[in-house]
Amino acid sequence: MEERLARQLRFILELDKEKNILRQTHLSGHGRRENDAEHAWHMALMAYLLREYANEPVDIARVMLLCLVHDVVEIDAGDTYAFDPEAQKTRRDREEAAKERLFGLLPEDQRRELAALYDEYEEAETPEARFAHAMDNLQPLLLNDSNGGSDWREHGISAVQVYGRHRQTAEGSARLYEFTDGIIQKHIRGGSLKG
Amino acid sequence: MEERLARQLRFILELDKEKNILRQTHLSGHGRRENDAEHAWHMALMAYLLREYANEPVDIARVMLLCLVHDVVEIDAGDTYAFDPEAQKTRRDREEAAKERLFGLLPEDQRRELAALYDEYEEAETPEARFAHAMDNLQPLLLNDSNGGSDWREHGISAVQVYGRHRQTAEGSARLYEFTDGIIQKHIRGGSLKG
Repeated sequence: MEERLARQLRFILELDKEKNILRQTHLSGHGRRENDAEHAWHMALMAYLLREYANEPVDIARVMLLCLVHDVVEIDAGDTYAFDPEAQKTRRDREEAAKERLFGLLPEDQRRELAALYDEYEEAETPEARFAHAMDNLQPLLLNDSNGGSDWREHGISAVQVYGRHRQTAEGSARLYEFTDGIIQKHIRGGSLKG
Repeated sequence: MEERLARQLRFILELDKEKNILRQTHLSGHGRRENDAEHAWHMALMAYLLREYANEPVDIARVMLLCLVHDVVEIDAGDTYAFDPEAQKTRRDREEAAKERLFGLLPEDQRRELAALYDEYEEAETPEARFAHAMDNLQPLLLNDSNGGSDWREHGISAVQVYGRHRQTAEGSARLYEFTDGIIQKHIRGGSLKG
């Protein structure tokens, strides 16, 4: 088999490990913890279905690709909980090392392409990356809301922390931020978020 | 909240259940059984990375979308094992009913759009659907091969059955079928596939 296809398939098999990276979010119906791969799938389909609410026109294929790729580095770097400030400090260094190793399995042109997608997502300066970030925030909010806010309660999360994170939602979609705000307010009233 | 967004979010929350639909394939490293959502994620990324091997030029955004959507009906209809001929007989009826209920949660324009994507995938008459089918076959083959063919051994699958399924791989990608053929021959020689 030629080298190029062999490298592509080697990377594709490595991707399988993303299914073992667990997040802090639980599936609806008070289910098990969600993994990164199924989270990315959910985000990509959400982006497609909700694209009419993006603040700016987006290339939806690129948004979907950003959603599918954004957590691949966690195969090496692990999931970093959005509300863990200590872990967030070391996140970029861990993820940069992971990016080198993982995308380095690919042929050079595809290594560059996937690294650029990861960087675009992280920098959040394109309309596509901003909308993908909105999905990354909205997706666990929907699951957590369906479970009565139990993920927030379990970690003693405050409304200030949640609002801090969702500033990025507003940058991707004012309409979906408005929805998010309503959910947060409901959970403050209900006591699952510290006011 | 307006009716349209409410319906979209209702469907998006329903999608979460796809993460509980288990396939017969096991993750690499002799892992747990794979679920439909992470399988679809893996297929979509594979399609993107391997698009140069499609027999015909493809709209890769549409291929990814077909990959992401193709198993949603299994939320109601369950996974139908590719090598279970009795279950395959009733599959289309079960999936048609699922299609009505699940996509019917969406606003009418999106109901039609997702139903059309499902139909396009099933009919396998477009270059995009044919390439997506090749991914649907290649993805479990790679995992199963990494586990020494244990999924085939467990179910006593024969080479004739596997070749039957992979005719569709050839229609999507001659090059990836050639690779597949090499893997199947290796497993016949090694005894994990009945000759």
